[in-house]
Amino acid sequence: MTAFPKQEYDERLIKVKEEMERAGVELLLISDPANMNYITGYDGWSFYVSQMVMIFIDEPEPYWFGRGQDVNGAKATTWLPESHLLSYGDEFVHAKTKHPMDEAGRWLKSKGKHAKRIGVELDAYYFSAKAMNHLEQALPDAAFADTTNLVNYVRMIKSDREITFMKRAAAIAEEAMNEGIRAIQEGTRTCDIAAAISSAQIRGANGIGGDYPAIVPLIPAGELTFAPHLTWTDEPLKKGEPIIIELAGCYRRYHAPLARTVVLGKPDAELQRLAYAVTEGIENTLDSIRPGLTCEEIEGVWRNTISKHGFNKDSRIGYSIGVNYPPDWGEHTASIRPGDHTILQPNMAFHLIPGIWLDNMGVEISESFIVTDKGCETLVDYPRSLIVQPGFSTAI
Amino acid sequence: MTAFPKQEYDERLIKVKEEMERAGVELLLISDPANMNYITGYDGWSFYVSQMVMIFIDEPEPYWFGRGQDVNGAKATTWLPESHLLSYGDEFVHAKTKHPMDEAGRWLKSKGKHAKRIGVELDAYYFSAKAMNHLEQALPDAAFADTTNLVNYVRMIKSDREITFMKRAAAIAEEAMNEGIRAIQEGTRTCDIAAAISSAQIRGANGIGGDYPAIVPLIPAGELTFAPHLTWTDEPLKKGEPIIIELAGCYRRYHAPLARTVVLGKPDAELQRLAYAVTEGIENTLDSIRPGLTCEEIEGVWRNTISKHGFNKDSRIGYSIGVNYPPDWGEHTASIRPGDHTILQPNMAFHLIPGIWLDNMGVEISESFIVTDKGCETLVDYPRSLIVQPGFSTAI
Repeated sequence: MTAFPKQEYDERLIKVKEEMERAGVELLLISDPANMNYITGYDGWSFYVSQMVMIFIDEPEPYWFGRGQDVNGAKATTWLPESHLLSYGDEFVHAKTKHPMDEAGRWLKSKGKHAKRIGVELDAYYFSAKAMNHLEQALPDAAFADTTNLVNYVRMIKSDREITFMKRAAAIAEEAMNEGIRAIQEGTRTCDIAAAISSAQIRGANGIGGDYPAIVPLIPAGELTFAPHLTWTDEPLKKGEPIIIELAGCYRRYHAPLARTVVLGKPDAELQRLAYAVTEGIENTLDSIRPGLTCEEIEGVWRNTISKHGFNKDSRIGYSIGVNYPPDWGEHTASIRPGDHTILQPNMAFHLIPGIWLDNMGVEISESFIVTDKGCETLVDYPRSLIVQPGFSTAI
Repeated sequence: MTAFPKQEYDERLIKVKEEMERAGVELLLISDPANMNYITGYDGWSFYVSQMVMIFIDEPEPYWFGRGQDVNGAKATTWLPESHLLSYGDEFVHAKTKHPMDEAGRWLKSKGKHAKRIGVELDAYYFSAKAMNHLEQALPDAAFADTTNLVNYVRMIKSDREITFMKRAAAIAEEAMNEGIRAIQEGTRTCDIAAAISSAQIRGANGIGGDYPAIVPLIPAGELTFAPHLTWTDEPLKKGEPIIIELAGCYRRYHAPLARTVVLGKPDAELQRLAYAVTEGIENTLDSIRPGLTCEEIEGVWRNTISKHGFNKDSRIGYSIGVNYPPDWGEHTASIRPGDHTILQPNMAFHLIPGIWLDNMGVEISESFIVTDKGCETLVDYPRSLIVQPGFSTAI
């Protein structure tokens, strides 16, 4: 069963083919699992082996290409006819000399369509340099073009159905954040917080089951809050420590990320000052959002706000989000940063995560939002400030 | 804090340099997060951006190269001196024209060591075809060699400390499997089973916290057991349905995977026959394992056993395991399959997972084992058969 009705996949395919036309490619090879899912519905944890979806510009239905033992998964999750599920033998899996792309090349040759202008996702996670080498060797007459993010850009404007999915994900994110914050007590290990969050993420909310987010909960505590991508430990929490929780709710691969910073006991003045600046920065930024502005312009609002407080941040403050798979829930298209001239349009979705990390601590407070006709709508409704535990009170 | 004492990393580096010598490379670029962790201790969910560890054959300490905001994470988790933590600016993250590998190339040039024979992991997950293109453009005089899996092969023989870590992971796997099976009741959703498992995986066992496994729990139920890599749904379980649970315990990135098949109520005759064949197959295979045999030879034992029951399986039945990151806990070295002539040696570790998937259902029963001086030792102690719920009884 696909997550969306067939018509939605048809509409997506039309848009992708328009972009193929623009890029001048007759065949598009998609390896990014989110793009495979977006086009065909395919959903399985099989991206640790070579697989792809092949879109011919002159054929109505794409082809799924993967490992033999995953064909049943493609039958169960895609809208493609069985004749469009192609597979390679298990001897190609993680083999020393053979590569699944040899088989893909052979099939493309045998098909006799002589598709010669082929788009490939050169910077996708699961399409390795070796895969590209084998494909080039198998198809010496083809002309390859880099179509990294071609489908990702089509994904940027969400349909109403996709926004419904992201709102379900947001309800899960709220529930998971509640469970995580409730677990914060003196002596609790951050792994126990992560366990509570992960359980809530998967159980879901309002009777609707959750999916696994593309990133595990990130829960640095104490001094480790100086680094944004640490996961958790089994050290007990101490009084006065800040704890960052970054997580997402996920519903059928659609994400709503959310980050908050919690302090166990009374926050010290430096932490409070940093949290205040981040909160004011995010609120001013959200207030400024309107369709027609660029990503760079809204980053400027943030930058001006925090500079008044004496802070500076040299990394991006957000990025486009939607359907995704590990290792990233970001869409790899627009980033909210200087130099990004992407124009905001209704039904784009972003994670605004203007964390600031100093030498000895950091604060993250984030919001996921949808651009609307007149401004933006945050996906999650959650206290937007430093949170004090126990008591679950806001600190500012 | 690194997971192991410095001496262990020193020993690993010596072995890797021996392999570099054999491969004829003066500089090794490692992008596989498991290899980065193995050499430096680095541990963070940052592999969604370009990063690598660079090992010069004539320098005692490798270099970590990554995103600026992840340098603090490298400070917190590696044994490297701060002068060996190199970073690129945030404007290179998921950018349209720039690539972090441009910066890596510039630094290598500026270092003036003229390292000209460079090993790269061409088939690693997080080293894209585009990364390779940019590196080649940045270093036109270098000669690149494919050193995919060079470090992975060094990882194959585990130290005693690593085996201790895998046993901790195994205790977590037992606990998680118990929690998962206990949750199986009529009307339970498989997402609730996954939530119980995930929570147990992260809480850990015996007071020791767990880490996130490289693969989420895979819990197909009913007809969906015909496909090995589906995750879960929010459909309620029905009487008589088989449920496959494949999971791992993970301790500081070391894995002990475990799969079992459970039936809700009385198993039908076909399921029982299939489970009986799989169980006998795995037991005969485990009994046959001795150092000196090849992977191909032990696969033959499985093959002969199940063929007596009228079954056939055309995919590999296992693979080497150890330290790893998403998307795979397999080491990408030895596979237990025809044509793999890897000779088993003491302290190698494998996941033996001889699942059989038919057109309408499947059975998975697996064991992780360490090769010993005389045979093998399974990591997990768990009833090895079809399991019946409620009641938690074995069905054969």
